[in-house]
Amino acid sequence: MKKPRIQLLLTGNELMSGDVVDTNSTMIAKKLEEKGLSLQRKVVVGDDVVLLKQEIESISTMADVLIVNGGLGPTVDDLTAEVLADVVEQGLEENEFALSHLESWCTQRNFRLDGPNRKQAILPKGVAIVPNPVGSAVGFSIEHNNCLIICTPGVPSELKAMLDQTILGLLTDRFTGLNETSVYHLPVFGLGESTIQRMIGEAIPSWPASVELGFRASLPLVDVKLTIQSSEDEKARERCLVELRALLGAHVVAEQETSMPKVVVDLLLQQGKTLATAESCTGGLIASQITAISGASAVFEMGVVSYSNRIKHDLLNVQSMSLEEHGAVSEAVVREMALGALQQSQSDYVIAVSGIAGPDGGTELKPVGTVWVAWGGEGKIDAQCLYFPGPRIYFQQLVAAVGLDLIRRRLLGVDEAPLYFKQRRLPRS
Amino acid sequence: MKKPRIQLLLTGNELMSGDVVDTNSTMIAKKLEEKGLSLQRKVVVGDDVVLLKQEIESISTMADVLIVNGGLGPTVDDLTAEVLADVVEQGLEENEFALSHLESWCTQRNFRLDGPNRKQAILPKGVAIVPNPVGSAVGFSIEHNNCLIICTPGVPSELKAMLDQTILGLLTDRFTGLNETSVYHLPVFGLGESTIQRMIGEAIPSWPASVELGFRASLPLVDVKLTIQSSEDEKARERCLVELRALLGAHVVAEQETSMPKVVVDLLLQQGKTLATAESCTGGLIASQITAISGASAVFEMGVVSYSNRIKHDLLNVQSMSLEEHGAVSEAVVREMALGALQQSQSDYVIAVSGIAGPDGGTELKPVGTVWVAWGGEGKIDAQCLYFPGPRIYFQQLVAAVGLDLIRRRLLGVDEAPLYFKQRRLPRS
Repeated sequence: MKKPRIQLLLTGNELMSGDVVDTNSTMIAKKLEEKGLSLQRKVVVGDDVVLLKQEIESISTMADVLIVNGGLGPTVDDLTAEVLADVVEQGLEENEFALSHLESWCTQRNFRLDGPNRKQAILPKGVAIVPNPVGSAVGFSIEHNNCLIICTPGVPSELKAMLDQTILGLLTDRFTGLNETSVYHLPVFGLGESTIQRMIGEAIPSWPASVELGFRASLPLVDVKLTIQSSEDEKARERCLVELRALLGAHVVAEQETSMPKVVVDLLLQQGKTLATAESCTGGLIASQITAISGASAVFEMGVVSYSNRIKHDLLNVQSMSLEEHGAVSEAVVREMALGALQQSQSDYVIAVSGIAGPDGGTELKPVGTVWVAWGGEGKIDAQCLYFPGPRIYFQQLVAAVGLDLIRRRLLGVDEAPLYFKQRRLPRS
Repeated sequence: MKKPRIQLLLTGNELMSGDVVDTNSTMIAKKLEEKGLSLQRKVVVGDDVVLLKQEIESISTMADVLIVNGGLGPTVDDLTAEVLADVVEQGLEENEFALSHLESWCTQRNFRLDGPNRKQAILPKGVAIVPNPVGSAVGFSIEHNNCLIICTPGVPSELKAMLDQTILGLLTDRFTGLNETSVYHLPVFGLGESTIQRMIGEAIPSWPASVELGFRASLPLVDVKLTIQSSEDEKARERCLVELRALLGAHVVAEQETSMPKVVVDLLLQQGKTLATAESCTGGLIASQITAISGASAVFEMGVVSYSNRIKHDLLNVQSMSLEEHGAVSEAVVREMALGALQQSQSDYVIAVSGIAGPDGGTELKPVGTVWVAWGGEGKIDAQCLYFPGPRIYFQQLVAAVGLDLIRRRLLGVDEAPLYFKQRRLPRS
């Protein structure tokens, strides 16, 4: 069947002023997707009677379902019930079910059922109730212009409970025979969106129409998404996946959704190995990304943030001569940092980085964005110079991801150098 | 003058599918607010030519300004330029300025300017360019139906740069005589929104109506906002600020917007002092937050992430006896970590933390969420046990903020203990 057109209307001054980041629509979209449904359009307005009325009226003429989110609370700026009554040309009344829900909700909490609270039971005549197992305000729905209008609360936990317990069932009952779409994620590191697209265009010209190819940059990774509309297309997608894995090689970081630090921690756990870090320009970012993963304590021994030369020497045994002759950002120093960290921690593997994060500290030969990375263990340490011009935070995030990626490749036994070794050379080198 | 009607159109399948939480519109709303402007309405659609065209056309007839966000990238699902050309009935052409920007952007990075990238220079005829100082795709604007349509990129850092450097100026030039509302921010740490609200209600019952009081939780801080509509209300706000500072004391972290790490780095710079960190449960998060600030290298000496007991002993000189007798999460050990880090780094100040981030590793006496913090320097180290039950990441963020807050208080010479020392005690202590 044709996919129903579902639109979302969010209301609340706090959403327009930027005081609140909207996570409700993300939740609604994900839950709809699981059921083979999707959002077609989303509109956000403040708590304004005129705008709200216009939007509800206009969306009801173009959509099969309108989910209204927000404006159900007890305060004067909660307008949804009043506006909806106006749109559907019904009066407001004290809804019996809503009132008894409010009464028991207040009794349970030893609250007095006062005027503002009681307002939450005043609903348009003729609505069906959507129970709220979590909070005080019930949801409600009504038909208008052949569109099912469902009003839901702005509190995320209440919205979630209503979606799970009532609304998703309502929708799948109404729209039977949906083709549940299925998304497969291939997280890629070290190639930009446009590079990936060009590579695919050149290598797989006969990409099947039934497999929708999408990209989502979630820095530092790019998520390559393969969406199919029906299980019949699963074979076509399998073939695409085989070709993509071959084409992108070790740039594919994982299957389905995951983060780089999680991949590294999992590989270390599987192999029973440990890791240490010696960080200068990333200032502890690599260590903190690893230790953000539950279970990291089994594989992570030590991190040293050696911001000064003295600490590089005292804690990591970097030779004063190397620092003087080559400078802190050099192959000699980063290799000694790596070796020193391995020795100090008795770990199996190490990541060491030394670079110039900026905005100050660059020179003509070593501009801001220059970084030396050393990685490895078990008798083999490699080092590479890379160049990531850009703001400090962006530089630090990329360098951390590169360090983790290189140790991931080592743990997997990948010999081939990543493509960013070529792309990310210093302009002069 | 009448406030201009500004509407926002966000485009991207990732916004409709729930893959990405939209933070761009929050950023736009905040920056507009600072200039006395506000968003009237916001619409979000996927990468769909028909829907995009309808929205641009329809919004242009009802708004004075339309900001389009997203769809400027190099891939096939980036449709903004193509659709806008269609709406304004202009052809597409290779824009000279956009192309030369792309060329120099690629040259700087040793990238080849390939087809997909070059697509970013194909723009509707007659647009004015909005320079992009950060990324590859320029923004652009054009008039249609008496509406100024401004197209901006979805990458937040690029959008931010364009707003600051071009777009806000464009808008304030166009709409002169705005009643710039003025917002004053008082970032508070260690008190929840409802606690602050209750304290203010009790202590300042005669809050003036002309000063709008608002709260925005931006974890781990709460931003207390005092908004006035005209400069005549400035005196009333000044009085409120004096009362708030007295009421909330050292819980006020700064004036206007800033981050905790920035405050600490600035204080250290002002006083010519240095800092070291010794982290167990936060795993380098404190060090990485400090070193994310430009200029940190002048004040930050060393960070040690001592995840294993051996490293606590070898690098920080924690006594084996202390570890055996009291365990790693104890006053004895965290104090020895602090002293060891001071000695090793020869820094003036230190933050040391040892705790149980979970989800595993808790015991009845030391449940997940227990943490010992030691801080100080110059002959005086203090230590405190706190309890932050909750998810691992949340725990780590809070503990890092507490460590930074305590060293901030020390640098300011504040003697009084923060209120969270009372509120965050272990249930049994």
